[in-house]
Amino acid sequence: MKIGFLQFAPTRLDSIRNLSLIQSAIAGSTFDLLVLPELANSGYLFEDRAELEMVSEPADGKGIFLSGLISLAAEQHACIVCGFAERAPEGLFNSAAAVTENGVLALYRKVHLFYTEKDFFLPGNLGFPVFEFQSTCIGMMICFDWIFPEAARTLALQGAQVICHPANLVLPYCQAAMVTRSLENAVFSITANRTGSETTARQSLHFTGSSQIIGPKGQKLASAPEEGTNLKIVEINPEQASDKFFTPRNNLFRDRRPDTYSL
Amino acid sequence: MKIGFLQFAPTRLDSIRNLSLIQSAIAGSTFDLLVLPELANSGYLFEDRAELEMVSEPADGKGIFLSGLISLAAEQHACIVCGFAERAPEGLFNSAAAVTENGVLALYRKVHLFYTEKDFFLPGNLGFPVFEFQSTCIGMMICFDWIFPEAARTLALQGAQVICHPANLVLPYCQAAMVTRSLENAVFSITANRTGSETTARQSLHFTGSSQIIGPKGQKLASAPEEGTNLKIVEINPEQASDKFFTPRNNLFRDRRPDTYSL
Repeated sequence: MKIGFLQFAPTRLDSIRNLSLIQSAIAGSTFDLLVLPELANSGYLFEDRAELEMVSEPADGKGIFLSGLISLAAEQHACIVCGFAERAPEGLFNSAAAVTENGVLALYRKVHLFYTEKDFFLPGNLGFPVFEFQSTCIGMMICFDWIFPEAARTLALQGAQVICHPANLVLPYCQAAMVTRSLENAVFSITANRTGSETTARQSLHFTGSSQIIGPKGQKLASAPEEGTNLKIVEINPEQASDKFFTPRNNLFRDRRPDTYSL
Repeated sequence: MKIGFLQFAPTRLDSIRNLSLIQSAIAGSTFDLLVLPELANSGYLFEDRAELEMVSEPADGKGIFLSGLISLAAEQHACIVCGFAERAPEGLFNSAAAVTENGVLALYRKVHLFYTEKDFFLPGNLGFPVFEFQSTCIGMMICFDWIFPEAARTLALQGAQVICHPANLVLPYCQAAMVTRSLENAVFSITANRTGSETTARQSLHFTGSSQIIGPKGQKLASAPEEGTNLKIVEINPEQASDKFFTPRNNLFRDRRPDTYSL
């Protein structure tokens, strides 16, 4: 299975331009599963709720951004996991969609919102779902979810072999932590981070790039620099994440002792 | 509060010599809380159960090793956390004791046994207890417990501000993972690893040293080389681990969403 990430700098409030950037960046490449950054349709900072409402779209795959991604996925019979600003009847969510030629296959709404995201987004209300694609079990989490070990653990215990992790990181800790997340759960993880900077009247942020793919033994399979558009695709065997073997006498899941945990 | 570790190479099956090594190594130093490696009375490998039974001792503080540690702790009105082979009515445990001038203050029995430890030791049956010393809440976990995020999480959720982590590490992953453990729980952690090698008829192992103290923001406060006896003591304010502040809008514990976790 060919898995990868596209790291780039989404343009604030411009879904069409962002879709076009994605299309250009992946032209000529082949993949089965590609992960894009968090909020890749909208950018990250918003002057007000009206701005965000305008650029967000429903998760039904009929909006301008997701329908474009579905077309890109269809060209390769692939799955694309992408962060996007979602407009739902109950409010706005910082979401990730897994799309294929058949439309939106799975939806995740960010559970652990970071800092000023709480101004506009509702906390995720769909838990941590997993889905199947090409006989591989895949899970999604978004950016700040990394600091809560329960997020990746919940996905892995439900069978996720690959964790897709769209991100807009501004702090330096996540990349090293995701090595631990992959290792402790014996899963592949794909962190697709964005680059560039954004400024609004209230806030200015710089995003840290350094996207990466980590294997189930914690090995770095691919990584990107801190700056610049970067596409990396590697061939993996997802079955390596099925067996939680750690030593001939240790299995990372069977050795768990929930009777001793207070969580 | 002065906290530290003593990294050294215990001699197999020689409690008296190991106690003497500890006494020499800490002579002239001052500390409030000192962590020693896993199985510091006995060494790590055993030819047979009889060897291990001979060198192990009860957790009542009256055996030759723990009574000696209690004397060392009493000299400084300090707390010493040390891994030791415990002989209990129900069997043998890979344990850690927290001792003070008043005797054994707390006992932990390793929950997640590594590899051939399962030949001789019973899995821990006391959960992950925390205890108070000098108004600071302290928890214990041993070596391989590091790979299960639930261990440090359980201690931190019970209020542990400092996690004492005696170890006999042979793999290279733990030190980086403990940075994540400290960061995700906003706690101090002290990993006291051993050095040197051991050989029995069945097995030969080299231990990796690199003991370390990590702060609640994931910062490395002290570390030791891969080889050699090494004592490090740093002054900390345990209150820094009481507040789970991460941003003005994020608290690492209040932001948890157990309703979305399947653990």
